[in-house]
Amino acid sequence: MKPTKHNWRTKLHEIIYEADTPTGKAFDVILLIAILASIVLVMLESVKSFDAKYHKFLDIAEWIITILFSIEYITRIISVNKPFKYIFSFYGMIDLLSTIPKYVSLLLPGTHSLVALRALRLLRVFRILKLARYLGASNQLATAIRASRAKIAVFLFAVLIAAVIFGTIMYLVEGEENGFTNIPKSVYWAIVTLTTVGFGDIAPATSFGQFIAAIIMIMGYGIIAVPTGIVSAEYTKATGKDKGKLSDEEIDQLQSVHLNTQCCVNCLTEQHQDGAEFCYKCGCKLHHET
Amino acid sequence: MKPTKHNWRTKLHEIIYEADTPTGKAFDVILLIAILASIVLVMLESVKSFDAKYHKFLDIAEWIITILFSIEYITRIISVNKPFKYIFSFYGMIDLLSTIPKYVSLLLPGTHSLVALRALRLLRVFRILKLARYLGASNQLATAIRASRAKIAVFLFAVLIAAVIFGTIMYLVEGEENGFTNIPKSVYWAIVTLTTVGFGDIAPATSFGQFIAAIIMIMGYGIIAVPTGIVSAEYTKATGKDKGKLSDEEIDQLQSVHLNTQCCVNCLTEQHQDGAEFCYKCGCKLHHET
Amino acid sequence: MKPTKHNWRTKLHEIIYEADTPTGKAFDVILLIAILASIVLVMLESVKSFDAKYHKFLDIAEWIITILFSIEYITRIISVNKPFKYIFSFYGMIDLLSTIPKYVSLLLPGTHSLVALRALRLLRVFRILKLARYLGASNQLATAIRASRAKIAVFLFAVLIAAVIFGTIMYLVEGEENGFTNIPKSVYWAIVTLTTVGFGDIAPATSFGQFIAAIIMIMGYGIIAVPTGIVSAEYTKATGKDKGKLSDEEIDQLQSVHLNTQCCVNCLTEQHQDGAEFCYKCGCKLHHET
Amino acid sequence: MKPTKHNWRTKLHEIIYEADTPTGKAFDVILLIAILASIVLVMLESVKSFDAKYHKFLDIAEWIITILFSIEYITRIISVNKPFKYIFSFYGMIDLLSTIPKYVSLLLPGTHSLVALRALRLLRVFRILKLARYLGASNQLATAIRASRAKIAVFLFAVLIAAVIFGTIMYLVEGEENGFTNIPKSVYWAIVTLTTVGFGDIAPATSFGQFIAAIIMIMGYGIIAVPTGIVSAEYTKATGKDKGKLSDEEIDQLQSVHLNTQCCVNCLTEQHQDGAEFCYKCGCKLHHET
Repeated sequence: MKPTKHNWRTKLHEIIYEADTPTGKAFDVILLIAILASIVLVMLESVKSFDAKYHKFLDIAEWIITILFSIEYITRIISVNKPFKYIFSFYGMIDLLSTIPKYVSLLLPGTHSLVALRALRLLRVFRILKLARYLGASNQLATAIRASRAKIAVFLFAVLIAAVIFGTIMYLVEGEENGFTNIPKSVYWAIVTLTTVGFGDIAPATSFGQFIAAIIMIMGYGIIAVPTGIVSAEYTKATGKDKGKLSDEEIDQLQSVHLNTQCCVNCLTEQHQDGAEFCYKCGCKLHHET
Repeated sequence: MKPTKHNWRTKLHEIIYEADTPTGKAFDVILLIAILASIVLVMLESVKSFDAKYHKFLDIAEWIITILFSIEYITRIISVNKPFKYIFSFYGMIDLLSTIPKYVSLLLPGTHSLVALRALRLLRVFRILKLARYLGASNQLATAIRASRAKIAVFLFAVLIAAVIFGTIMYLVEGEENGFTNIPKSVYWAIVTLTTVGFGDIAPATSFGQFIAAIIMIMGYGIIAVPTGIVSAEYTKATGKDKGKLSDEEIDQLQSVHLNTQCCVNCLTEQHQDGAEFCYKCGCKLHHET
Repeated sequence: MKPTKHNWRTKLHEIIYEADTPTGKAFDVILLIAILASIVLVMLESVKSFDAKYHKFLDIAEWIITILFSIEYITRIISVNKPFKYIFSFYGMIDLLSTIPKYVSLLLPGTHSLVALRALRLLRVFRILKLARYLGASNQLATAIRASRAKIAVFLFAVLIAAVIFGTIMYLVEGEENGFTNIPKSVYWAIVTLTTVGFGDIAPATSFGQFIAAIIMIMGYGIIAVPTGIVSAEYTKATGKDKGKLSDEEIDQLQSVHLNTQCCVNCLTEQHQDGAEFCYKCGCKLHHET
Repeated sequence: MKPTKHNWRTKLHEIIYEADTPTGKAFDVILLIAILASIVLVMLESVKSFDAKYHKFLDIAEWIITILFSIEYITRIISVNKPFKYIFSFYGMIDLLSTIPKYVSLLLPGTHSLVALRALRLLRVFRILKLARYLGASNQLATAIRASRAKIAVFLFAVLIAAVIFGTIMYLVEGEENGFTNIPKSVYWAIVTLTTVGFGDIAPATSFGQFIAAIIMIMGYGIIAVPTGIVSAEYTKATGKDKGKLSDEEIDQLQSVHLNTQCCVNCLTEQHQDGAEFCYKCGCKLHHET
């Protein structure tokens, strides 16, 4: 059943939000290049010696990128039925944050460095590349990480409590004269130590402090095993499953797995099944070429 | 069979030590908030610039928290049959340690910073939240950690012996002029290095010292694999079990797993089975609403 | 069947490129020793105090090694049919790079230190020893690493993106006065922190910077679990396979895994089981030879 | 069959080398305490401020320990048939090294600090406690570590080659002015970085050096997964075995596992089977009470 009405907005939506048509794919590739270029630009600009030499060139390039991103932002808004849903979505906020500082810097010169917030747009790379898809078996990896996430979160919460307790003890033991100037800083030190990062910007100076530090480090060394063990076991489970012994429902799941990149014009819901005619969330008609 | 006598002490015990009744739950939530608030307070107080501005406010808040904790401490004592069992228990000691410094600081002004010991009360968070329970499968994680604990302890003991030997060698090789002023300090350095923390507050300066350090680091890198491998394998075992192929005894085990939060008035034993009428430790009658 | 023509070039090729004949093996052993000796030489030369004493001896030894390597290089070229294939191969480039700097240093004295590039020849050790082969089971290890490589690459790419984002944020938060002089340097710091290396040459000085650093470290601590889990699970799979002792059900399972390439005439569904008579999708009869 | 001749040497041998009799066990416990005490003594002595105060006491205690160890050393020699086998064994060397420096220091005062070599005697703790035995399942851990050892060694060898190559490159890139004074030092730095220790005593200062360092760190982060994966998989295999599905040969193996602590008087071979009458190595009669 062919959709009957093909106005410009539907077209735009197809190009910008989906990747099933050639133009949609081309848009994604160009966007990816633009994002990477904008990051490189921001980096070069931050290097003072480079900026001094090529300031003019960088400024012009910066403006071109900003205007392109602005156009993209506006087009994204006008091509969806519920623009506010996009504007207040996570990616909508980031898209805004990566264009606005350049304009604001015209009025308030000091704020120019905020263009660096554009680095957050790199997160869109995950969306465009759909990185996980590029590797056949990565659904298993995703499954393993998803299965481990909650347990690792609880685990890291426990690590955090340990850091607060150890940090407070070190504050009492070492005191201000050895760099442990206040409890938040001591907790920061405890995290640096427990995670085996060990900057050394603060280090225990008293014998007793070093003794406690040794305990913290050996603990950190022992407990790093826990999250690793979790992911490892979950991943073993996830990869073990699809070795021939799939249950009926799992086969069903796998068969229905191919979800296309279409995106509902009305509610921005993604991942519709390949033959879907209507959005599974809001029931709105999906527009696609046949 | 309904318990016949419901005096105020039984009521108090139910509220403070158990979490089966609405008031018991509410008490736990309030206690949790009070503990977190008291930690934040202690942290803010330790930041000199903040303390200078809001000293009065912090001091009053500190007194309120201290008095609340004191009331809780006293109530805990009077609501159990054997108060000394609570007083000399691990949590009893911590509860005392977190209230007393404030009172002592009235007499001995220098001891005020010891209120930071209150951070130890954070350990109660584990008890209140029963963190492990919040995640369905975490019994498996607990099983894995319990099964690994002894092996990891032996392993860490071996790491400690290695640290003593390497630390002593480095003391002989590097000597006092390069920061390895005595053997305990050298052992501390060896632990910092073996655990891959690497503060850099002490670092080998001679060629031979750096050569030995390289060996220590590569060893540390190789042996970090051991505890991880242990947890990972134990967890794989623990999670592998409940995949449909449970033995009868395991099902029995799981069925008896639901333990409520009741706590014996007489001996403070916890984790009674759901239908239990008497404490499984001391045989004393358990009081609960029906 | 004996080869009939044995000219000198075939002989040379056999000695240099192969290791099946006694002379071929002897050549490999001598080459290995020469490479290791040349590395030790370059190292000693770089130690100024040693070079000052034994400069003459080192220079002569250097020339002997260089001439030997040059002879080897030329012989390698003339003993293959397609010399350019070798010259522009990876090992061909390295072999050239490890001889040429010594000759160039006669004309341009400053370039002498480039002989250190000879260290790259160490890679040939892998080729000569065929390290993996020396251990019976290492094909499994190779399989596991190969299976994990792509996933770990995607994972490290994700870590890199995280480093760019966190580095940029830290540049904005900490600024030039705390050592975060430009974004590339901040990204370098973020990598140092995420990988738990933690040099401490740059370290956050502001409270907010330390707070973000704590988040980065805890993240780094949590995500180190992912690549480990991948290798561990892949290796379990790789070693589990060739254990020969499959139970009957496992054999059944494996046998039922084999899905043939038949394709239903009616609905084009593929991957039917080996004994299937009817399409499992549309129930239509499958046609197959017997 | 009771052994007929029980001279004093056989008795001594039984007490010192074995742990089957009460006196043998008591000897081991006393030795353990003496070793630990001697380590603590050496540590305290190395702390200058402590040594200054209690020098006399420490010196006397040192002499007592030294004389006790000397007596033990001589008794060990006279109670075996082939004393030179003990003298030149690994533990024999360590036992000598831990007594001799004190005597030598009478003649050459500067050598006193070498008594610290006594720390090596800590290795005997492993032998006395037979640490692995104390944990039921630790044979599996031992199996896993033994199975992984060769692979981890090859792996660490590969890491070492990577360190040499990266260290040399960094020497060329950073040069002497940034702390990379010679290639061995650069290789040391590369090991510090690859193992994620990161002292920060040497750190790249140029942009290009930091770029290469970033690559090294991300590599180190990625490859730490390999040894962990190996141990983890081997351990899973080792623990998976004894879950009820033991093959006949494995049961045979387990049944013959109980080896006592007897030690042949003639050749010092250990781990004889429980009912053994003769040494399985040299055929010499074993002496034991019944």
